[in-house]
This record gives sequence, C-alpha cells and structure tokens, in this order.
Amino acid sequence: MTAMEEFEELVADVFSRKCTSRTVLETITGRWAILAIAALHEGPYRFNALRRRVDGVSEKMLSQTLQALERDGMVLREAEHTIPPRVEYSLTPLGREAAERLLPLLAWTEERMPEVVAARERHEER
Amino acid sequence: MTAMEEFEELVADVFSRKCTSRTVLETITGRWAILAIAALHEGPYRFNALRRRVDGVSEKMLSQTLQALERDGMVLREAEHTIPPRVEYSLTPLGREAAERLLPLLAWTEERMPEVVAARERHEER
Repeated sequence: MTAMEEFEELVADVFSRKCTSRTVLETITGRWAILAIAALHEGPYRFNALRRRVDGVSEKMLSQTLQALERDGMVLREAEHTIPPRVEYSLTPLGREAAERLLPLLAWTEERMPEVVAARERHEER
Repeated sequence: MTAMEEFEELVADVFSRKCTSRTVLETITGRWAILAIAALHEGPYRFNALRRRVDGVSEKMLSQTLQALERDGMVLREAEHTIPPRVEYSLTPLGREAAERLLPLLAWTEERMPEVVAARERHEER
C-alpha cells in the first residue's frame, strides 16, 4: 500500500473508489441487507421467521446477506445447543446504529412512493 | 390488479414483495445512485464533472443511474441550447429529501469504517 492509499484509508471518503467505506456502504445498502437490518431492528429473528418477514428473499440470498452482515459486525448469530439447534440472529450495537440511519430512509420511501409513481407516469408520457 | 394488491399499493410496505416502494428504494440505494445523489446535494453538476466526483463510475453506469433518478423524479436534467449543448444535473425537491436521508448514512459509514474493518479481521481469524 502506498502512503497515499494509506492516507485515504484513514480519511474515509465514500467518493473515493479506493476507500474501504464503500464496501461497508455496499454491505448495508444491498437490496436484502436494508430489509434484513430493518427487520432485526424489531427484535431477534430465527432464520425462517426472518425469511418470512423479508418477503420474497430466497434462502440463499438471505443466508449470504446475513453472512456479510455478520462479517461486518452488524449481525450476531447465536446457536443454542439444542436438538434441533436453534439459531437466532440479532443486531449488534453497530448494526443498531446502521438500522437507525436506514429506518428514516425506509419510512421516507414508503411515504413518498405516490410522488415517485406520479413522476414515473409523467416520464412515460413524454 | 386485485383488490388486495391495490390495498398493498396504497399502504406502502417495503417488506412486501409486491409493494412499489421497494423499487423506489432500489433506485436510490443503488451503488452509484447513493453517491450521485450525495454529490448533487453539493450543487448542480455537468455530466463529466459528476463522473469525476463519483470516482470509479463508468460513463454507462452514471448515465443509467441518472436516467433512473430522473424517471423517479429525484434528478432534473437541464439542457441549454448552446453550441456545444451544456447539460446540467441537479436534485429536485424530492431528490433533496432523499439526499437528506442518505447523507447521515454516508457520514456514519465513513465514521464507523474502522470498527467494520476490525470486525472483518476478527471474522477472518475465526
């Protein structure tokens, strides 16, 4: 790593293609990650219940999403040694912080959906 | 459209796979869309200047991103009838609202990057 790259690592700047912060942003703003984080903000979930909550996600995609969130320190995966094993997912304090920044975006998206639909219709008419 | 689908259209719920709000969320949380919206929050940009600001984006991807944001009513594209034509992009009031919800997320991502990097390192060591 060059001195300049090291400097860029320290001063996080999502606009810079070399900055690691971009990969963080991509982990938490992925299509399914946003919804999984928002769901887990409601409380811990077991895999299948979370899959039902995040309507439309495949088993594979949810599994990959949770693995990436776990790797990035946002989600905690806890397995109880029962038969059958009970695995629960919850947000870490870091994941909760991410959720707190994502929820206003989700609420806004739901609230403003009619305006966006209207804009799309105007655009199609042009 | 069934009565149930119409109801779901009215009560926006990003958790529902049928809800249009999900497509809105995807427009504004795409990899390049987040950065383009954040850049345009600084002020209007011409295409090439915006491309330099959003470091690493290809001409094709930025063009597609701006088209989707324009369609969804977030970005205004204004062409002046000069030779050569001068095309400027800016946020609409709706786009500015989206930016106001995205900027805290970007700032948080930059701020918390070291914790995420540390989590990744712990994860690799396991």
